[in-house]
Amino acid sequence: MYKVYGDLLSGNCYKIMLCLKQLDFAFEWQDIDILKNESRSTQFLRKNPNGKIPVLEIDGTHQLAESNAILYYLAADTRLFPQQRLLQASALQWMFFEQYSHEPYIATARFIVKYLGSPLHQQQQLQAKREPGYAALDVMEQHLKDHAYFAGDYSIADIALYAYTHIAHEGGFELSAYSAIHDWLQRVRQQPGHVAMQAPS
Amino acid sequence: MYKVYGDLLSGNCYKIMLCLKQLDFAFEWQDIDILKNESRSTQFLRKNPNGKIPVLEIDGTHQLAESNAILYYLAADTRLFPQQRLLQASALQWMFFEQYSHEPYIATARFIVKYLGSPLHQQQQLQAKREPGYAALDVMEQHLKDHAYFAGDYSIADIALYAYTHIAHEGGFELSAYSAIHDWLQRVRQQPGHVAMQAPS
Repeated sequence: MYKVYGDLLSGNCYKIMLCLKQLDFAFEWQDIDILKNESRSTQFLRKNPNGKIPVLEIDGTHQLAESNAILYYLAADTRLFPQQRLLQASALQWMFFEQYSHEPYIATARFIVKYLGSPLHQQQQLQAKREPGYAALDVMEQHLKDHAYFAGDYSIADIALYAYTHIAHEGGFELSAYSAIHDWLQRVRQQPGHVAMQAPS
Repeated sequence: MYKVYGDLLSGNCYKIMLCLKQLDFAFEWQDIDILKNESRSTQFLRKNPNGKIPVLEIDGTHQLAESNAILYYLAADTRLFPQQRLLQASALQWMFFEQYSHEPYIATARFIVKYLGSPLHQQQQLQAKREPGYAALDVMEQHLKDHAYFAGDYSIADIALYAYTHIAHEGGFELSAYSAIHDWLQRVRQQPGHVAMQAPS
């Protein structure tokens, strides 16, 4: 049995929700409010010493952190992960790209705007995210001009990159010039079992 | 046949060298000087549109970027990657941790000190890396108090974390208080086929 510790507004957590739903795996969801420091509580740090969400708990005994490692765990033996080793590595390449060159700019800009209300003292930090954020979108756009998905067929690489790209505008990124990304977002939404990011109930 | 585009002073590139040597795989190495912008040349951007090293070229036709995705490609079917899915995902968990919570502080501090000569105008940026860098080392230390390696036996997760941890002092990180990390660094160095990071010839 799977239990996810996460925040429904977090793209990293939405990745796990989307993957679990598309694979039709049963799971329990427990909200963790990072603004209340719930991911830094003694109890939570026992689950993930790095103090970050999401965490996947497996059969109440094993915990796995890092959204993209969780995606691998859930999907490794399914249609959402390629079978051929070079394509597997390509999927992981895009997932590492997402965490290193995309998320730190596109997701954190959204965090400053949506979670923190875009405070004045963070405007410089917010602006510094624009150039590298658009650079990441440029790399995606270039790939998607010639490919329907990131690593062969639709896979966890697409889930990883969809999570924060489809809400990049919430952090102030303008996507209208990215037509290949636009079409890819549509293709991802049309995948069997797709669920939208949910607002907390 | 493998060809690596890299920089011998880069920890991300050293990961690939170390893994190839430990697996006894033949390869060719081509130096890329990032300070001369060689990773941003038109020719190189055709190999990796994200303009980063290392890149692994396979049979002259396929290119793979992102150091930890390359490690997966090289090691997936070898003793350097666990066989059991939860351990595989744990290895990837630590590799994503390395790229998100460790490398951006510990490697980039070293880059500012060693590559750029610690210029005055980057002192504030350098200092900002201390707290999150030590936080990453704390997480590693805690794990290594109870475990010999990061994901079962010695694996590519250890290679990924060894690369910048064993030279963290070059970026000004003081490791003397981290006895479990110290012992782990020793264990890694004693692995069959281990090679030290090399200075360019």
